Amino acid sequence: MKLYEKNQQTSYALGVTLVFELLKKKKKLARKLYFSPLFKEGESKEQLIHLAKEAHIPIIQNNQKIFSLSEKESCYAIGEFQKEEESLKEDCDHVLLVNPSNQGNLGTIMRAMASFSCYDLGIISPNADPFAPKTIRSSMGAFFSLRVKTYSSFELYQKEYPNHSFYPFMLNASSSLDKLSFAPLTTLIFGNEATGLPSSFLKVGKSIRIPMEESVDSLNLDNAASIALYTLYLQRKFK
Amino acid sequence: MKLYEKNQQTSYALGVTLVFELLKKKKKLARKLYFSPLFKEGESKEQLIHLAKEAHIPIIQNNQKIFSLSEKESCYAIGEFQKEEESLKEDCDHVLLVNPSNQGNLGTIMRAMASFSCYDLGIISPNADPFAPKTIRSSMGAFFSLRVKTYSSFELYQKEYPNHSFYPFMLNASSSLDKLSFAPLTTLIFGNEATGLPSSFLKVGKSIRIPMEESVDSLNLDNAASIALYTLYLQRKFK
Repeated sequence: MKLYEKNQQTSYALGVTLVFELLKKKKKLARKLYFSPLFKEGESKEQLIHLAKEAHIPIIQNNQKIFSLSEKESCYAIGEFQKEEESLKEDCDHVLLVNPSNQGNLGTIMRAMASFSCYDLGIISPNADPFAPKTIRSSMGAFFSLRVKTYSSFELYQKEYPNHSFYPFMLNASSSLDKLSFAPLTTLIFGNEATGLPSSFLKVGKSIRIPMEESVDSLNLDNAASIALYTLYLQRKFK
Repeated sequence: MKLYEKNQQTSYALGVTLVFELLKKKKKLARKLYFSPLFKEGESKEQLIHLAKEAHIPIIQNNQKIFSLSEKESCYAIGEFQKEEESLKEDCDHVLLVNPSNQGNLGTIMRAMASFSCYDLGIISPNADPFAPKTIRSSMGAFFSLRVKTYSSFELYQKEYPNHSFYPFMLNASSSLDKLSFAPLTTLIFGNEATGLPSSFLKVGKSIRIPMEESVDSLNLDNAASIALYTLYLQRKFK
């Protein structure tokens, strides 16, 4: 038996830190709070009780089973929340991930997005589950600061955001990241960890490469995304 | 029983891609090559046989046990190699990792280093094992392009490279990465994934922060390292 399956309508924030993020950032989606019998009295616990009251959700004190299924050491609190996608903002920059396959990478990209003030994440399916507890844990809770929406094709995403300029990141792209000024509404587009973006994306918007040694097999997906997000952040903040 | 333990004198490159890197970049350290019975005849196999002859190492054709211990699906070749540290070059930029604890992160940083032409990696112990098969796999073979040396303290490293300028990356540092010109011989210094660098590093060289939103819990270690490496690479290449 598993704690979580993709077809469930709720998912879990595992551990005190993530539960705080859930209750502070996405209170309306919170459904239940579980406390481990090992969770000691103290400031954290009192604050969580307070936040749970504000969110009008029950606190369940004795459910050993959910903690044994959580596969996380020293997990004192678990927050159950409703899985809900949210439309991306029309007037903000986006990240679009085409077929990301690894929950850890997906969460790490969410963390980098929040670090660099980009809060709208589109995902083209098939994809790693953005709601999975492992994704949320890798995001260090940044998941709860983002709007996340999944699309079954790039064309559907493109239709919904006609005013965005598209920048697919590809090894054989013509423009170099360090020479580029991003348009006012930007979508940074990245492909799958193993296969990258299909070559059809060379015709989408302005394709970009990160300058690097050619002998190397490219960067890790989340490293590439964080370099792109950092570059965009500097342009937005200081130019 | 495990394939590899930290106190062994040899380690393993798992899979055809990594074995190629071993035999091309660190031929002298190669000791044995194992072929799976499932490894089909073809160009890759012929090339590996050729490289093994050049390296004067035996090819062992039937050792099911080592493949069952490798924990990697569809692994057709394994290269066994001598673990050997190598002095870092005095006239090159370095990365110095203080107490890195995660083999995956360590490998990913190696990959980013090779992408951005930085080939010298110092590590302050205690540390995740740079020779572990998992580290090497995460590096996508970049491990075999690097010089790696472990030191028992920062002071020992510092003494060995008196001409390097030190840039510890810290959240409460005074200088911002985007405003900085790196000195001709640079050491980028990063702390542990969970705890960062000890505050004593604020007095070492010039401490640096990556500009980002303050509400966020900092970046993943390998994302921070890759942004720093990219910035250094652009300065070296284009300035």
